[in-house]
Amino acid sequence: MAYNLWYWPTIQGRGEFVRLAMEAAGIDYVDCARQGGSEALIEDMERRQGRTPFAPPYLAIDSMVIAQVANILLFLTDRHDLAPSGIADRYWLHQIQLTISDVVAEVHNVHHPVAVMDYYDGQKAEAARAATQFRNERLPKFLGWFEECIDASPGEWAIDHRWTPVDTSLFQLVEGLRYMFPKRMAAIEGDYPALIATRDRVAAIPGVRDYLKSERRIPFNTDGIFRHYPELDAA
Amino acid sequence: MAYNLWYWPTIQGRGEFVRLAMEAAGIDYVDCARQGGSEALIEDMERRQGRTPFAPPYLAIDSMVIAQVANILLFLTDRHDLAPSGIADRYWLHQIQLTISDVVAEVHNVHHPVAVMDYYDGQKAEAARAATQFRNERLPKFLGWFEECIDASPGEWAIDHRWTPVDTSLFQLVEGLRYMFPKRMAAIEGDYPALIATRDRVAAIPGVRDYLKSERRIPFNTDGIFRHYPELDAA
Repeated sequence: MAYNLWYWPTIQGRGEFVRLAMEAAGIDYVDCARQGGSEALIEDMERRQGRTPFAPPYLAIDSMVIAQVANILLFLTDRHDLAPSGIADRYWLHQIQLTISDVVAEVHNVHHPVAVMDYYDGQKAEAARAATQFRNERLPKFLGWFEECIDASPGEWAIDHRWTPVDTSLFQLVEGLRYMFPKRMAAIEGDYPALIATRDRVAAIPGVRDYLKSERRIPFNTDGIFRHYPELDAA
Repeated sequence: MAYNLWYWPTIQGRGEFVRLAMEAAGIDYVDCARQGGSEALIEDMERRQGRTPFAPPYLAIDSMVIAQVANILLFLTDRHDLAPSGIADRYWLHQIQLTISDVVAEVHNVHHPVAVMDYYDGQKAEAARAATQFRNERLPKFLGWFEECIDASPGEWAIDHRWTPVDTSLFQLVEGLRYMFPKRMAAIEGDYPALIATRDRVAAIPGVRDYLKSERRIPFNTDGIFRHYPELDAA
């Protein structure tokens, strides 16, 4: 039975980390709001009672509703055997995934530093300040840590000899950062060869390769998490 | 064998969510940096090779290092049977825990909206703007959602008839918000009776009660996540 994935239909956003893992693993899903639109997503959220998600994305399966990207990926990993199951590997993988969530939140904060519910245009000065420190200090710190994680792997993937949702998430992180900060990424990418090699390996996973060529892959745009505002980028 | 917990020794911060769960459950741990100071924590982080944490808090046990609050609590829950183990409950609990992580990150962003690595004094104007929207829009949204979660529980605790690390974390969230936003919390707390009742029940757990009276509980201060700056509060 296919999963019902609910997420905003016009952006990659946080939903993309879920889509990519399912596409890579060949897991059947229906991207519900791509058919019914944002209205259908809002209706679905309002219709639910009891254990409801705080925000999309969420997976609906049987009577369960599973939200929070890292939680969804943990569920899919457990249920579809997408990673080594040893205790040490299990929590190490989730630790990396949660750190990806952290950098994604900081990325969103760059263009919405003082008013997450309002438009970027109303906080451009603050965003410029946030972007400077993100590009110069936070970004190298995060990328350097992911590079060390991959270096510590005994295999060619982030955790061992098979890809996991952490690899597909690192792919998306690199793609998003390249879109948002093309000058900065061009200047520093060379410092993270293992991370970039992981990105390239993920792009060659057959399910991912097919997905990226399909209409299911929504192009990056300035409504998502990663937004290209030229004024926020610099080498 | 006691766990080694590593976290900054002079603040509650993110480490407090881990401390509270262990104190409530009676799990033995050594709060290492309370003895060796911040220098010991920094040395421990630098000494580690391979699978190293991105940031404290982290638990060191056997050869494992487990970081990220929600991941640490998931590990402790699994290992010490701190929650119902059914699949639906398991991911629901983690979903709530990750949403607590999200609100904690937004709380930190209130006093550090544009430069997470710099001092509050250098970003007071931006923080004032961030605080206004947080108090008026984000805070009621998050607290309302936690209230609904508890209302959906068949038992008297957040998820059922026993406390879990989600309950101790909700306690800490309420305590932190009361310290940071006393006027605002006084004005809106009455809207969240189930959440406040959960806070009160956690305070009465014997391990928590003893902990709160002990020197192990570091008082709130303006170096942690929750910071009382009167200029950021309003009813």
